[in-house]
Amino acid sequence: MEGNAIIQADALRAFVAAVFERAGLAPGPASDAADVLVWANLRGVDTHGVRNLKPLYINLIDQGRIDARARCTVEYETPLTARVDGGGGLGLANACWGMRLAMEKARQSGIGLVAMRHSHHFGAAGYYPWMALQQDLIGIGLTGRFAARGAEIGVVPTFAAVPMFSTNPISIAFPTAEEPPFLLDMATSITPYNRVKMYQELGRILPLGWGMDDQGQPATDPAVVRRLYPLGGSREMGGHKGYGLAMVVEVLCAGLSGEWCDGHDEDDRCFEGYAQTHDAHFFGAIRVDLFRPLEEFKRSMDAMIRALHAAPKEPGQERIYVAGEIEHETEQERRRKGIPLPANVVADLQELSRRFDVPLALGEAKAGP
Amino acid sequence: MEGNAIIQADALRAFVAAVFERAGLAPGPASDAADVLVWANLRGVDTHGVRNLKPLYINLIDQGRIDARARCTVEYETPLTARVDGGGGLGLANACWGMRLAMEKARQSGIGLVAMRHSHHFGAAGYYPWMALQQDLIGIGLTGRFAARGAEIGVVPTFAAVPMFSTNPISIAFPTAEEPPFLLDMATSITPYNRVKMYQELGRILPLGWGMDDQGQPATDPAVVRRLYPLGGSREMGGHKGYGLAMVVEVLCAGLSGEWCDGHDEDDRCFEGYAQTHDAHFFGAIRVDLFRPLEEFKRSMDAMIRALHAAPKEPGQERIYVAGEIEHETEQERRRKGIPLPANVVADLQELSRRFDVPLALGEAKAGP
Repeated sequence: MEGNAIIQADALRAFVAAVFERAGLAPGPASDAADVLVWANLRGVDTHGVRNLKPLYINLIDQGRIDARARCTVEYETPLTARVDGGGGLGLANACWGMRLAMEKARQSGIGLVAMRHSHHFGAAGYYPWMALQQDLIGIGLTGRFAARGAEIGVVPTFAAVPMFSTNPISIAFPTAEEPPFLLDMATSITPYNRVKMYQELGRILPLGWGMDDQGQPATDPAVVRRLYPLGGSREMGGHKGYGLAMVVEVLCAGLSGEWCDGHDEDDRCFEGYAQTHDAHFFGAIRVDLFRPLEEFKRSMDAMIRALHAAPKEPGQERIYVAGEIEHETEQERRRKGIPLPANVVADLQELSRRFDVPLALGEAKAGP
Repeated sequence: MEGNAIIQADALRAFVAAVFERAGLAPGPASDAADVLVWANLRGVDTHGVRNLKPLYINLIDQGRIDARARCTVEYETPLTARVDGGGGLGLANACWGMRLAMEKARQSGIGLVAMRHSHHFGAAGYYPWMALQQDLIGIGLTGRFAARGAEIGVVPTFAAVPMFSTNPISIAFPTAEEPPFLLDMATSITPYNRVKMYQELGRILPLGWGMDDQGQPATDPAVVRRLYPLGGSREMGGHKGYGLAMVVEVLCAGLSGEWCDGHDEDDRCFEGYAQTHDAHFFGAIRVDLFRPLEEFKRSMDAMIRALHAAPKEPGQERIYVAGEIEHETEQERRRKGIPLPANVVADLQELSRRFDVPLALGEAKAGP
């Protein structure tokens, strides 16, 4: 399509980091945040990549809703755990900080669990367990939001009439030896809302069963879908399990961090004085050798993955995939060929380039992304 | 229906414990195992209750496949973790042993994680996190099985043509103050296979979309359904997420415990020498006060649960449920009125009563269960 472009990952990362710095972030957090977004694009998770830079992150900084100069502070700590105040800062940078703390505790104590309150949207959940993989740790990354009085957009609990949870994703990673690492990154809804918005941008219709309009009627037009079904869909097909998982994520993030707390009596979104006003996250890192020698475990992961690859296929299918595998292959390809960007994202980045006076080294895409 | 009966929980528990003792278990493990089965019936999880006593557990003991005299042994241990050999014993008793070890570690170190290999079917996954709730701990209970060369019955990975995972359930519990505790207990398939079998016993047809016949065709006759869809169903509806969760459970159970290991080259079910020959489990216990004062957390759980209860309902629905709530109410009712048993289960228990010379104090059910 006209206006599509391609850009090398390093150039895109430098651009995004510079934009975040000009928007007020310190160099370290700006660089971390750029890593998260460009990683999502490299992995083909374009819903959570630089597509969100201008309309989500920079926009919220402009509005003063994200504090670009915020710092994370530990509110309570043990050798195994921490409860962190994200200071209302950029979720992408906060989450890198929180995951590093979990990993440091895991290296020293074997396990590290960090719950963070007072943060914002942290991008692709998978990035944080991926950080743990770089040190051969088991990694966990979760983010959760709960609207006690219902929200306009989000996941509808089984038998409810309004959205109450965000898509509260679960990401878990296990290290491997030669195979690409196992990296599950899943919304606890059938689809993340970012994919609905991307379908709208691309002029595509949604599969029936992903969402409803704001009257609760099943809908396929991404322009009207505001309410998402939990993973499983209807009660009969196990939708209560997706809803249950969304609540587990919520409690680990907002319950343990204290983001879901009382004292909000003046807030009309509160229930019995309780409300969640910011995003909350949860990060975990676990050393494999608390259980079993690392290399032995990693070889056994390879064998399980290869057993899945070798299994008989459903008619019409040529491959069986393991979580993270398609994204791993996309990453290899995009590291070589560059990251394709659709016209609307290119236009956003060019506007940021002009506004912040940061050069953007785009190439023209030969074919659509 | 004719032959239905009702029995008080205490009487049923004493009966089951006596049967397990006569079948060769020591008094402690026999009592533990009886608690797990009767708890499932009390909670209305009849698929995983005494229905399985004769055809599953006693049958496997009779065949010598479950070693009634087995003992659990710790193969490797840290203050936070343990890897346990279940000795090929009864999974119900092994799992109580493993969960107690996790809880002891959590009390002493804050967190306890236990992976167990060489075990058998452990009943309702929810019982083990429920044990943790009795000490106000966050509880986790998982069990996993992987068939490297495919199985006759089980969950089919996305795009595969054969079942490779068991229904690998996830159970997680959080303590509450006044509300019933949050207790999620879910197969990572749309339905557990035990429910398919129970539908067959009750002469019921399955909803379309739960399973396939052994040719991979969608089927609703429980007599022919051998293959189950992962939670989510098709790829488009998120079935790869259910499959991904099944693999997470598998790795935590069989990967960390070493149940999934090499050295099985002579076994025709092996892949590259790797196989899983027994069930593996994973138990977790976490102290809430590693993050936040317990009572504060418990009150916040109550508020979240009540906010869900108070939300607007889908047309035609009168209540919004939280995980574990229906089971909690069934438990209150069955503690008063007794546990209803269908005729086929009554017949099994009567046979065990005669065989082991253990009295069974049944009452006649007024209405069907």
